[in-house]
Amino acid sequence: MSIALPHIVVDRNLVEHCVMTLGSIGAAAGTGVKRTVYSPEWVKATDLYASWCADAGLIVRKDAVGNVWGRLQGTREDRSVASGSHIDTQLPGGRYDGALGCISAYIALRTLHEHFGAPRRSLEAVAFCEEEGSRFPAANLWGSRAVTGRIADGEAQRLKDYEGVILGDAMRAVGLDPARIKDAQRSDIDTFIELHVEQGPVLEHADIPIGLVTGITGLRHYVVEVTGEANHAGAFPMDLRRDPMAGAAEMISGVIDTANGIGRPAVTTVGRLQVEPNYPAIVPAKVRFTIDARHPDADALRDLYAMHEATLRAVAARRNLELSWQVTLDQPPSPSDAATVELLMSVAQEQGVRAMRMHSGAGHDTQVMAGIAKTAMIFVQSRRGRSHTPEEFTSVEHAAMGIEVLAGAMYRLAYA
Amino acid sequence: MSIALPHIVVDRNLVEHCVMTLGSIGAAAGTGVKRTVYSPEWVKATDLYASWCADAGLIVRKDAVGNVWGRLQGTREDRSVASGSHIDTQLPGGRYDGALGCISAYIALRTLHEHFGAPRRSLEAVAFCEEEGSRFPAANLWGSRAVTGRIADGEAQRLKDYEGVILGDAMRAVGLDPARIKDAQRSDIDTFIELHVEQGPVLEHADIPIGLVTGITGLRHYVVEVTGEANHAGAFPMDLRRDPMAGAAEMISGVIDTANGIGRPAVTTVGRLQVEPNYPAIVPAKVRFTIDARHPDADALRDLYAMHEATLRAVAARRNLELSWQVTLDQPPSPSDAATVELLMSVAQEQGVRAMRMHSGAGHDTQVMAGIAKTAMIFVQSRRGRSHTPEEFTSVEHAAMGIEVLAGAMYRLAYA
Repeated sequence: MSIALPHIVVDRNLVEHCVMTLGSIGAAAGTGVKRTVYSPEWVKATDLYASWCADAGLIVRKDAVGNVWGRLQGTREDRSVASGSHIDTQLPGGRYDGALGCISAYIALRTLHEHFGAPRRSLEAVAFCEEEGSRFPAANLWGSRAVTGRIADGEAQRLKDYEGVILGDAMRAVGLDPARIKDAQRSDIDTFIELHVEQGPVLEHADIPIGLVTGITGLRHYVVEVTGEANHAGAFPMDLRRDPMAGAAEMISGVIDTANGIGRPAVTTVGRLQVEPNYPAIVPAKVRFTIDARHPDADALRDLYAMHEATLRAVAARRNLELSWQVTLDQPPSPSDAATVELLMSVAQEQGVRAMRMHSGAGHDTQVMAGIAKTAMIFVQSRRGRSHTPEEFTSVEHAAMGIEVLAGAMYRLAYA
Repeated sequence: MSIALPHIVVDRNLVEHCVMTLGSIGAAAGTGVKRTVYSPEWVKATDLYASWCADAGLIVRKDAVGNVWGRLQGTREDRSVASGSHIDTQLPGGRYDGALGCISAYIALRTLHEHFGAPRRSLEAVAFCEEEGSRFPAANLWGSRAVTGRIADGEAQRLKDYEGVILGDAMRAVGLDPARIKDAQRSDIDTFIELHVEQGPVLEHADIPIGLVTGITGLRHYVVEVTGEANHAGAFPMDLRRDPMAGAAEMISGVIDTANGIGRPAVTTVGRLQVEPNYPAIVPAKVRFTIDARHPDADALRDLYAMHEATLRAVAARRNLELSWQVTLDQPPSPSDAATVELLMSVAQEQGVRAMRMHSGAGHDTQVMAGIAKTAMIFVQSRRGRSHTPEEFTSVEHAAMGIEVLAGAMYRLAYA
């Protein structure tokens, strides 16, 4: 780092052009985008991304699951430095989630290539085929899982989309062979840096354009079932009821209060609830609800889970309700590579870009890539923290600043 | 009351025979019954009831909506004393809810007729065609509403069942003319006494077979809508959320705690709840839930509503959530005729039947009949308070004791 970083300026018009052009493929609900994996819109979008990369002088290939890779070949045989994100969207998502990371990697490589020619270490831009699980709900992180060898045998034949289409058949329909999924695996990536919109309001509230992600949160999904006894809403006195709604309400308040009490970065959400039989004049028999609990620190996460479970047990015991739960998702925290975060921070400082360290409360391809490479993420400010909605918005200026930090770090890793 | 009540004993075998025979029409799910108004099962059941009444020497007629009346003609021109309940069921209900009241009226009249011949004042047994709203959800109390002139013009053409069948067409299909509904109206009933299963556990817990109903509860149904802002469950810090699930949980705990704190006879139930969008990893945008609040005393009921509304407003304000509600049902308390309750109590005492005064927390045809007659109700013990389920059960002995109290009161009103 003794040599000063050269001045790297990203073309704002190019950023805007790429966001709007890619966002037009699958455009829905005004500023929304619907682009699910292996759909006609997805084919069009991946073809566009490949053509951008080719025009920038990159070596382009689609791998066995449809990830698009653009490679700027280095002069030395060495493991590469890669960047990118996913090209699929929610139903509808916005123009930025995933897409901006693909665009940023392409623009960073194009800019570095134009100004500095071939790097010593190879640089790669990638558009992962799938991350959202918006078409095949159990497929999520499909692209990065293929790259890291985390797709199980037979998974392509087992997973179905919401209309019953088998994932393997959807692959074949776009010219991919599910028998070749393992060919997508990579073991030659040294560092992976993903640029992504924050999807929360933290940067906006702090009035800082760029976040450098120190780690991705760990999380669990619980499906909690509270069972009491269905009874007539009028004829059954309060003191004789075993009311699972009363119990669930107290449990929900309890777990949310726990996360509130701990404060940032703990979060706990009850987003889904179902009542049986769900009639106004019947004390319910059963209430089922989900708990999504997250913390980026492994010890604090364990404590959070333990406090939630204690709350559930205490309320059920006091109210004489049956209680059971399933853990349907259990993801450990994924810390970033500390040296890479430091590199990004020093680049931002040299470039005069205001950046803060923060964690990611959402999951990303980066946590999968962490299995084979050093990783870090660059967050750019989201307006009002809106995400997974057509309302998603990130300014061109903030996006460009993020890309400049990415390009600067790539320069340090591959040229300097 | 100076003359001692003659010894009236009801045939236990007849009670059991009637419960099992009527319960076999529409039998479902073991001990359950599905018998909705104007269905083939309903036709069979009303025909059976008419034949029972005819065999007992009663004058039988089906009125314009299909209520079956059996009349034991009095020797004097005077307003009659009637008893009965509804012959339709929930989906499935049990063998007792409604059915036992129809059977009791028939057995009481048959027993009185056999032992004492013609009364001075006419006695009537009735099987109301519909009370539950289990086929036409908005039709409930159809039979007693027809008798009291509370069916609106055009209602038969407006109401539809769950399959879209218009009520008027369903009437025509069983030989009834919806244009003649007003012919069902009566103005010549002096006293109406309904025997019904308790549908709650109060009598069982008190170990008393018979309840004498001092009044039917008033109640409101609120549909409450709490709106916040949908956000990512991971990326949005707790302190910046406007989470309607957190608000709804606190409101639900609040209104249930309020009713618990007041104690019997106040009851408050949240039986229905819906979340939007209802995904585990999204802080909801909106939570809708119902509040069913009941109290048999008009002043206490007003206070209960006011406390609930204050809870909703306070939580919404503190949590910065939007709040709105609709009152979808608003029913004032319906007190029984005090003299009729006293008569029933004195009859029970003379007969050595242990009885307690209580209110009804459920609605009944009696509250409608209160518009044209003096009313009271006799409750018989329900096992474990189970109702609107095949598990419903009342012992033959308790049913017979209730019918003996009913018959004794009818004797006092029509013979003595």
